[in-house]
Amino acid sequence: MTDIAIIGSGIGGVSAALTAAARNKSVLLFGERDMSRKMRRAEKVFNYPGMPEISGDELADALARQIEGMGISLTEDSITAVYDMGGKFALQGKSGGMYEAASLILAMGVVNNASLAGEEENLGMGVSYCATCDAPLYKGKTAAVIAYAPEEEAEVRFLSEVVERLFYFPVYKGREDVSFDRENVRVILEAPKEIAPRGKAVITDKGEYACDGVFVLRESVAPKNLIYGLETEGAHVKCDRMCHTSLKGVFACGDITGKPYQFAKAAGEGNVAALEAVAFLDGR
Amino acid sequence: MTDIAIIGSGIGGVSAALTAAARNKSVLLFGERDMSRKMRRAEKVFNYPGMPEISGDELADALARQIEGMGISLTEDSITAVYDMGGKFALQGKSGGMYEAASLILAMGVVNNASLAGEEENLGMGVSYCATCDAPLYKGKTAAVIAYAPEEEAEVRFLSEVVERLFYFPVYKGREDVSFDRENVRVILEAPKEIAPRGKAVITDKGEYACDGVFVLRESVAPKNLIYGLETEGAHVKCDRMCHTSLKGVFACGDITGKPYQFAKAAGEGNVAALEAVAFLDGR
Repeated sequence: MTDIAIIGSGIGGVSAALTAAARNKSVLLFGERDMSRKMRRAEKVFNYPGMPEISGDELADALARQIEGMGISLTEDSITAVYDMGGKFALQGKSGGMYEAASLILAMGVVNNASLAGEEENLGMGVSYCATCDAPLYKGKTAAVIAYAPEEEAEVRFLSEVVERLFYFPVYKGREDVSFDRENVRVILEAPKEIAPRGKAVITDKGEYACDGVFVLRESVAPKNLIYGLETEGAHVKCDRMCHTSLKGVFACGDITGKPYQFAKAAGEGNVAALEAVAFLDGR
Repeated sequence: MTDIAIIGSGIGGVSAALTAAARNKSVLLFGERDMSRKMRRAEKVFNYPGMPEISGDELADALARQIEGMGISLTEDSITAVYDMGGKFALQGKSGGMYEAASLILAMGVVNNASLAGEEENLGMGVSYCATCDAPLYKGKTAAVIAYAPEEEAEVRFLSEVVERLFYFPVYKGREDVSFDRENVRVILEAPKEIAPRGKAVITDKGEYACDGVFVLRESVAPKNLIYGLETEGAHVKCDRMCHTSLKGVFACGDITGKPYQFAKAAGEGNVAALEAVAFLDGR
């Protein structure tokens, strides 16, 4: 079993991974090949100590090289659910993969999209965050997909091969140009407002679309929907000065813990979170 | 008046200065030309995000260049006392200089030397941390100096020109080789244990040396002796997640706030402390 699973490959997650590896712990670092899309959008950073006027691209590339140099490999998967198994955590990936770790560091940044009405109450009961995991449940049925990034279109393509009929609600820039060459996919450019009980319909500002289940696909899952019992404050995970969350063995760092949304702050918290995870593992 | 005074030029203080300057606040950064002697002793750092396998020397040099590039100048002075003047802070330097700032960030690292018995109680009443400031009080009298670094020998030379007689207690590596070509200086290689009331004697493990006042010279003054009313926990300054100390307008970052003693952690806290100081200044 891996010692520490780190969800998120921004500077907070990378900092945690570097420190964990320096302390001889095994690490599963979940993220994207690009490291962080948000970081890459930063044009110039003036206040990251040691690297004057660095661009987000340069910093992300430096971080990618640094983890490689430390022998840390990036697992390109997005975690959609975490289960506390008592003494270990089971992580479910969007790819369908399952992973295990003895401790957990949440570093997936801040999730801006608020949950939809009916989303949380029906999670696992008609509402799913993972197409790969739950597609088989809707074989021969009607599914709806609400997606917050164009990257999710691949999931729609996959789902459309399994289900009988699919309503696709893209909720992102450029959605007007979305089209699928599949007859069973209907793209609906309306704003989803609510999910009916047990995922039996998507209700938009203009109508209601009956279905058997709803997939909600985001860049990352809101922390309170990722793991049961985690205390949050709005979009942020509650944690103390030492990056402990309300759950034993679960730590947090970076934007997810609250403002300021700054590289140095995230890097510092990643360092602290990793050392606290190490202390937790050593003290068990 | 300067917006923010930052005491300490390690990575915590530098990080605070960079962020304060990026936010258009005026900064007084107190430190040493070398930036941080402690940092320079680090052979290789593996876990500072973005700068793989950097040496302490390289990092210190990079920080020095970075503040220069941001137009921040380093004030080479050591602060021995801070007075809360209600709405502003007055800072007394070892050089004899007085400075004013509207807010304060403590970033002087962790002070390892515990206070001597009798030191705190008699501070300002026979015990002084600043030779330049208080030498005139002992003209024609007998003074004692307890010093924790060879750099303080310059202070002894200066004091010996003012006072009638001087006992010098060096408490550092290489003290066996200390000598002064001045007849009125007596070097005593005994371990100071206690300062008598009103600084009337230094008591060592072997004897008692009567004097009129005692100078205690350290690399930096322990935080609780630097500013009245500051809450501490052992060698550390108490502060919350946002780097607020128990005093309004006073923030802290880096090793002084507690473990882990790590570059990334200190840099992150410097960033947070500066942004909180900015918010404090803007909200007044």
